[in-house]
Amino acid sequence: MGKQASHDIMDAIDRRFSEQTDFLAEVTSHASTRGAEQSAQRFMDAQLRERGFDTDLWEIDVDDIAGLPGFSPVLGSYDDALNVVGTHHGRSQNGRSLILNGHIDVVPEGPLDMWRRPPYEPWCEDGWMYGRGAGDMKAGLVANLFALDALRDAGYQPASDLFFQSVVEEECTGNGALACLQRGYRADAALIPEPFDEKLVTSQVGIIWMQVYLRGTPVHAMQTSSGVNAIEAAIPLIAALRRLEENWNSDKPKHARFEHVEHPLNLNIGRIQGGDWPSAVPAWCCFDVRMGIYPGQDIDAAAQEIENCIYEAASQDSYLRDNRPEITYHGFLAEGYSLDDHEKPEAGLARSALEQAHQTVTGDRLQSMPITATTDARFFGLYADTPALVYGPTAEGIHGFNERVNLESTRRVTQAIALFIADWCGLEEYGAN
Amino acid sequence: MGKQASHDIMDAIDRRFSEQTDFLAEVTSHASTRGAEQSAQRFMDAQLRERGFDTDLWEIDVDDIAGLPGFSPVLGSYDDALNVVGTHHGRSQNGRSLILNGHIDVVPEGPLDMWRRPPYEPWCEDGWMYGRGAGDMKAGLVANLFALDALRDAGYQPASDLFFQSVVEEECTGNGALACLQRGYRADAALIPEPFDEKLVTSQVGIIWMQVYLRGTPVHAMQTSSGVNAIEAAIPLIAALRRLEENWNSDKPKHARFEHVEHPLNLNIGRIQGGDWPSAVPAWCCFDVRMGIYPGQDIDAAAQEIENCIYEAASQDSYLRDNRPEITYHGFLAEGYSLDDHEKPEAGLARSALEQAHQTVTGDRLQSMPITATTDARFFGLYADTPALVYGPTAEGIHGFNERVNLESTRRVTQAIALFIADWCGLEEYGAN
Repeated sequence: MGKQASHDIMDAIDRRFSEQTDFLAEVTSHASTRGAEQSAQRFMDAQLRERGFDTDLWEIDVDDIAGLPGFSPVLGSYDDALNVVGTHHGRSQNGRSLILNGHIDVVPEGPLDMWRRPPYEPWCEDGWMYGRGAGDMKAGLVANLFALDALRDAGYQPASDLFFQSVVEEECTGNGALACLQRGYRADAALIPEPFDEKLVTSQVGIIWMQVYLRGTPVHAMQTSSGVNAIEAAIPLIAALRRLEENWNSDKPKHARFEHVEHPLNLNIGRIQGGDWPSAVPAWCCFDVRMGIYPGQDIDAAAQEIENCIYEAASQDSYLRDNRPEITYHGFLAEGYSLDDHEKPEAGLARSALEQAHQTVTGDRLQSMPITATTDARFFGLYADTPALVYGPTAEGIHGFNERVNLESTRRVTQAIALFIADWCGLEEYGAN
Repeated sequence: MGKQASHDIMDAIDRRFSEQTDFLAEVTSHASTRGAEQSAQRFMDAQLRERGFDTDLWEIDVDDIAGLPGFSPVLGSYDDALNVVGTHHGRSQNGRSLILNGHIDVVPEGPLDMWRRPPYEPWCEDGWMYGRGAGDMKAGLVANLFALDALRDAGYQPASDLFFQSVVEEECTGNGALACLQRGYRADAALIPEPFDEKLVTSQVGIIWMQVYLRGTPVHAMQTSSGVNAIEAAIPLIAALRRLEENWNSDKPKHARFEHVEHPLNLNIGRIQGGDWPSAVPAWCCFDVRMGIYPGQDIDAAAQEIENCIYEAASQDSYLRDNRPEITYHGFLAEGYSLDDHEKPEAGLARSALEQAHQTVTGDRLQSMPITATTDARFFGLYADTPALVYGPTAEGIHGFNERVNLESTRRVTQAIALFIADWCGLEEYGAN
């Protein structure tokens, strides 16, 4: 690709950036929490069709994916869990194929009074756009689309096949990305613009979610001493999990890329619920555990170790000893993934192409980092032997309040994505096959 | 009242007891949890009208009662919080007036899988009726009604005014009973057949409910160390409350009637809720505190002591120190009450009448006891100078699972109530004024 083409493409992004910002606000205004992604997905589908993509909008069927590696268990059905893939067919096939992936689902917004303004009425201030999902990861999803728009504005299109994916379920299982694999979408590389500060994610941890359900013996509060309070029974179990976390983190990291990360494996007790009435000793309590593991670490063995920790703590309690906590899995059973471990030559080539694109746009060397979270990259990397680059804009407050994404960063990332596509897929003159 | 009349009345109860059991099952089948009492109350109203009572069915207006002593704060409105009072006017006015009070509201049933059978499909087994509310206190409420039916069957009616009350809100505030006072219903004594094992309740504790709301600093679970987990922040606060409970119970009881009660003041952490997503450090956690106090103990001072305990524990935490827990009252601010302390002569007279009735039915002396719970008796006793007798059937599992009431006990209590009415109100020939 010549300097002129690069310049034209970057320029096209600048010219459309105000439109891109409005588009991002529109996508962010859809409250696409788990189970409520339909309107956002139908919007994405319509936008892809308008741009001439062949689109594939489908409801995920758990039965189709339940037997596949990387599947995470779910409770309930996937009615209305819609994935969208838009396919561009390169005319000349003079390049490598690419998956541009992003997720449409967002985590719950939490108590509204902790937001400065309503989370689904995105607003801009001092160069940031605020709103639930603006950063994680609608800015990246929209960057993928506007990178392609810029190629077209400059008179080009990818010379090879390109699959634009807008998936659900990234925030709890990854089953949306898995369903894309199951449906046959494959390419030579994948790019996911998750909001990691314009750095390349080289390694990501695995994540285990489990839910612990405790029973108590319920009585009227007038006789609390004869009952067992299920809420308070949870406290020593949580303490034991914190000790396990401490042990895991004080051991030598089981993956080289995490040797300089201060606290690679994070436990989170993210949700609790228990009891029905202030004057009844609570008969039940349920809490959610989220724990990280290293890339390459056996997930079943790790889950078993966490279970054992919970059961061992429970066995110290005279009531729980005979009334074992029930442990349920309905969410992440996600392995770690490291791009560094990917031996296929495309891994290095894709990485070089992104480094080049980033340098052209920013003038700086692309930095890389391991992260203590997961992304859908693992599906492409582990289960389809497809190197997956995670590279997206700077955002703050993701999974928190007043989430925001930096707009200049979004612009730069959009430009880098466009140049990466041009390099990786090759360019041909815009037009139908 | 002659022996023949007693015999006829008790006999009438025996004859109708199968009908009474069916009636109790019907009332129990209404899932009259807070906010859902309407169908049960309309049923009670219709039954009272059918029996010739003047009925008064009204929606409680918080504004009418908010300024009265004994009022407990509520969140939200009382739309559809219906009270029912049926009034019988004694023709000859040859006796003392009486309030028969019972509450229609029940506490939530909790997880259905902890019930042997569905809680609102009452069933009988080995002489017990099972179902949520069967014991607490629909058996007593129905006993009140069938005691009056038995008088009529025997050809009698109360010779003085009698008010049959079916109230809401006993389980959380007592504002249903308070609204009856506010509406002008007064009598020389009140009887409440709460399920305390055919014993007379001589003293009851006061109850304070408060809700503690904690905030954390929410972040993505990948950076748990930079966030403050609001769920785990609650743990030291709960521990501090347990220490306060221990101190209060190890001090000499502040009321003579509780000197021989092993653990008079019970703390209960009855409900907890926190966080929205397993992979987000929870930004909030909220738990419910229920604590007992002695009769005569100043409720504001006690509440302040509990608050101080919470704030003091919070001040030990570097984050909570600057982000004080929010404490909200929306439930019991209930003073204790002791019939023993009631100096009005009617207190002794009513007690003697009940002792006599109980002895006639059971052949045993009426036992009495203090309880570590509250009842609506406090409103009559403290705020209307009306001695209030609490005396009802044997029940088990109230506020728990597989709640049940003993049917033979219910029969005996119904007979004792009928004889008590006959004695207290006097009898006259059944018939209109």
